[in-house]
Amino acid sequence: MKHSAALSALIDALRSLPGVGPKGAQRMAFHLLQDGRPAARALSQALVQALERVGRCSRCRMLTEGPLCVVCAHPGRDASTLCIVESPADVVAIEQSGGYRGRYFVLMGHLSPLDGVGPEQLGARELESQLQEGGVREVILATNPTVEGEATAHFLSELARAHGVSASRIAHGVPVGGELEYVDGGTLAHALAGRQLLR
Amino acid sequence: MKHSAALSALIDALRSLPGVGPKGAQRMAFHLLQDGRPAARALSQALVQALERVGRCSRCRMLTEGPLCVVCAHPGRDASTLCIVESPADVVAIEQSGGYRGRYFVLMGHLSPLDGVGPEQLGARELESQLQEGGVREVILATNPTVEGEATAHFLSELARAHGVSASRIAHGVPVGGELEYVDGGTLAHALAGRQLLR
Repeated sequence: MKHSAALSALIDALRSLPGVGPKGAQRMAFHLLQDGRPAARALSQALVQALERVGRCSRCRMLTEGPLCVVCAHPGRDASTLCIVESPADVVAIEQSGGYRGRYFVLMGHLSPLDGVGPEQLGARELESQLQEGGVREVILATNPTVEGEATAHFLSELARAHGVSASRIAHGVPVGGELEYVDGGTLAHALAGRQLLR
Repeated sequence: MKHSAALSALIDALRSLPGVGPKGAQRMAFHLLQDGRPAARALSQALVQALERVGRCSRCRMLTEGPLCVVCAHPGRDASTLCIVESPADVVAIEQSGGYRGRYFVLMGHLSPLDGVGPEQLGARELESQLQEGGVREVILATNPTVEGEATAHFLSELARAHGVSASRIAHGVPVGGELEYVDGGTLAHALAGRQLLR
């Protein structure tokens, strides 16, 4: 059964969301257009407002409504440590862990030359000017443990070193609470290679 | 970490979509607001257009852009059979099965007195006027096999009988291609009770 043009367009737009397949998109579209259409109106309004108001933090590139994000605007955060992540979701995850008091820098992606994503697109220039300012003593590379994430981390570590700033990589290994038996080989190899002496 | 107001509103609106949890909604919001925001713009536009253009079929209450839906407007469909379903998605599913040539009537829900959904909200009046017209000979009740769906089917069968129209219920039993071993008890009981003599 072919959907009408406007309905097809809505389903296609919903399908482009992460984690949404054809069936899910159709279900969402029908839900949005149900009696009275309150859901569609609410989402439409929220989108317009977000498009209008949400911009990037001028310091760390995190999504924010003001000129600075909450973390960068907080006077109590340690400006000498800069944690570099791939996406805003990573900032949220690290903040929720509660163990980090420094600042962030959000790349909004990873190096991917084939997709036209180079250092420029990841804000390397802004990052360099921050490193040049001299307040940052350590850069923590928290990009994803994927091929692209590792390449990005490697590139950033060189960049930091060029500015006399030390660079560290977050630890990769067996997740806390996880069982060794169910951990994949790559992670286990990482965990073994990265073992630390007990004192 | 608290999101800004506009971002929170967008995440909340996305969370109200079927099958979307808090993490998924956040991921969608970040995706929508990524570089250049093409996804947010596309979805916003699709929503506005759908809200403007998509209405209900005046005959069967299916979502449509014209006055009549594709099925009701098709001259080749058998007007003497009316399949009553709960949602537009059910129409799509039955159409995809390819085995039905009659028309539909979409309730847009099921009887649920506690939520204020009575016969009125399900279009019982429109349905009655169609039964009164006299063209319909059989009503196929294809509501979901849930408590509410069964209650709705029961109510509709009485309604059909009152107008001298025969009512049938779709068969419930073991899914074709399914293995008996993995079918739940309720379905098996249904399958046994609804057994048919082989001739």
